[in-house]
Amino acid sequence: MYRKEIKVLDCTIRDGGLMNKWQFSKEMVKSVYDGCVAAGVDYMEIGYKSSENQFSRDEYGAWKFCDENEIREIVGENKTHTKISVLADIGRIDYDDIAPKSESVVDMVRVACYDHQIDKAIHLAEHCIDKGYETTINLMAVSTTIEHTLEEVLNDVAKCRVPTFYLVDSFGSMYSEQIQYFMNKYKTALPGKTIGIHAHNNMQLAFANTIEGIIQGANMIDCTMLGLGRGAGNCPTELLLSFLKNPKFNLRPIFEVLEKHLLPLQEEIRWGYYLPYMITGMMNEHPKSGMKLVESDHRNEVLKFFDAVIDGKVLE
Amino acid sequence: MYRKEIKVLDCTIRDGGLMNKWQFSKEMVKSVYDGCVAAGVDYMEIGYKSSENQFSRDEYGAWKFCDENEIREIVGENKTHTKISVLADIGRIDYDDIAPKSESVVDMVRVACYDHQIDKAIHLAEHCIDKGYETTINLMAVSTTIEHTLEEVLNDVAKCRVPTFYLVDSFGSMYSEQIQYFMNKYKTALPGKTIGIHAHNNMQLAFANTIEGIIQGANMIDCTMLGLGRGAGNCPTELLLSFLKNPKFNLRPIFEVLEKHLLPLQEEIRWGYYLPYMITGMMNEHPKSGMKLVESDHRNEVLKFFDAVIDGKVLE
Repeated sequence: MYRKEIKVLDCTIRDGGLMNKWQFSKEMVKSVYDGCVAAGVDYMEIGYKSSENQFSRDEYGAWKFCDENEIREIVGENKTHTKISVLADIGRIDYDDIAPKSESVVDMVRVACYDHQIDKAIHLAEHCIDKGYETTINLMAVSTTIEHTLEEVLNDVAKCRVPTFYLVDSFGSMYSEQIQYFMNKYKTALPGKTIGIHAHNNMQLAFANTIEGIIQGANMIDCTMLGLGRGAGNCPTELLLSFLKNPKFNLRPIFEVLEKHLLPLQEEIRWGYYLPYMITGMMNEHPKSGMKLVESDHRNEVLKFFDAVIDGKVLE
Repeated sequence: MYRKEIKVLDCTIRDGGLMNKWQFSKEMVKSVYDGCVAAGVDYMEIGYKSSENQFSRDEYGAWKFCDENEIREIVGENKTHTKISVLADIGRIDYDDIAPKSESVVDMVRVACYDHQIDKAIHLAEHCIDKGYETTINLMAVSTTIEHTLEEVLNDVAKCRVPTFYLVDSFGSMYSEQIQYFMNKYKTALPGKTIGIHAHNNMQLAFANTIEGIIQGANMIDCTMLGLGRGAGNCPTELLLSFLKNPKFNLRPIFEVLEKHLLPLQEEIRWGYYLPYMITGMMNEHPKSGMKLVESDHRNEVLKFFDAVIDGKVLE
């Protein structure tokens, strides 16, 4: 697949940090950055932009905050073709903490929100546009949004200045048919805007759904190296780049990072196809109950978990 | 997805045995069988039917041979709705070793072959039909068959009495587009025959490609529990049954087997998404060089492997 409009966004550090509270070594973050640059990746999302007064530095690593100086320690002035992105969650960032673009090496602020937060998300994203940034809005958990609400959301987004809107399969619960449905809905409702896709791998469909999104016209494509990310993880960067035939992409630098950092990390952190994540995906639920089980010593006791989720019980 | 014609074939023991020379405990094989019966699986493929004079019992476990008495130790007279299948490779089975159906609890003999063996495969499969068995022909490695040859194969198959023909993605190298292409080609060339699908997971697409096959009309669907199978493994039975909405299927018994046998086995045998398998899949190659690396102490040295495969070198 080659389409010149396609942009790849690697969010290994940002989404992966959900698994270790962003306690990555500086060497690893630098290696991921260097790998993205060498591989021709269009955007590297380096972390969440959160305000320091909302989270503790004792608990969270640097990439929960994305302090300008700490970013520069990794990317310098970033005189490369790989742009730097940060993700902002509604309510976890003070507007004043966002510097004007002229003072920052960050190129893009992506705003993640749930359906009831769409007006706040548009407001924040337009604030970032006014400060000079590229922006996107990433509507999370759309697999639980009723159609009437979704149509209101899309109406609001259509009228705003934010140029890119994401199809996000937060719970990894979608099949190709759902991807087709939402892609068509988003394209129809948002003429002139770019549609992005961010998939999760609970049912081993993150890469397949990403391909389906691309076939349906998505041009901003999220991925993470070795699929590192919350719970079952994401669409793997190595698979995405091996699929895209755009000559600017180069797979080998990704394998360097995989060998040096991601494979060793797999010995420490459990992400990927674990049955509790498959079960929450299948049931269209947030993976948090599954994460608790996978991280525990009882991770192989999947039958009890299966029964509880099917019955709609909350596990202690 | 519900379509009453769809039949599910679990080949956990047969394909999984490629990873441990079929050295499964009798208890595990019985558990897989009981799980298939309770889950409503239509066929359980219990192993390869090979002649005793071709392979050593010292090296290979029972399910490389599928001796009638050993099968009966697991399934008794098999008075269930789950039929028993065995796979025969061309050249590894003597015709005389196939008992008449009246003397066997086996219901189906599937014949696997490469394109150049198609006439032998048809001959063997029709021999099995004459002995009273259901049969299929599974054309392996079609991702390396040139179109002219494939058309000859399909011509031969169209004229024969074997009712089912399989799309097999032996190297896990296909995307949804290839599945669509081959499904349409097979359907057009083989009117009146059932098309089956057997996918591998090298690029995390086994389940997605299986769904695509079903959408395109495949009605005989292979899977294995937890995806156990050669190299990157197969389409997981638990995902397939969670996708199929046919009320006869029941997912819970599969989770019992997963918890009791497959999860513990994962500590001993390495199958699944390992990068060497991703690389051979991407390059449309047999996974054997990848299996050698994954099984070695150097399994994380993927960059050297990547370079070698890209350069077309054979690794020692």
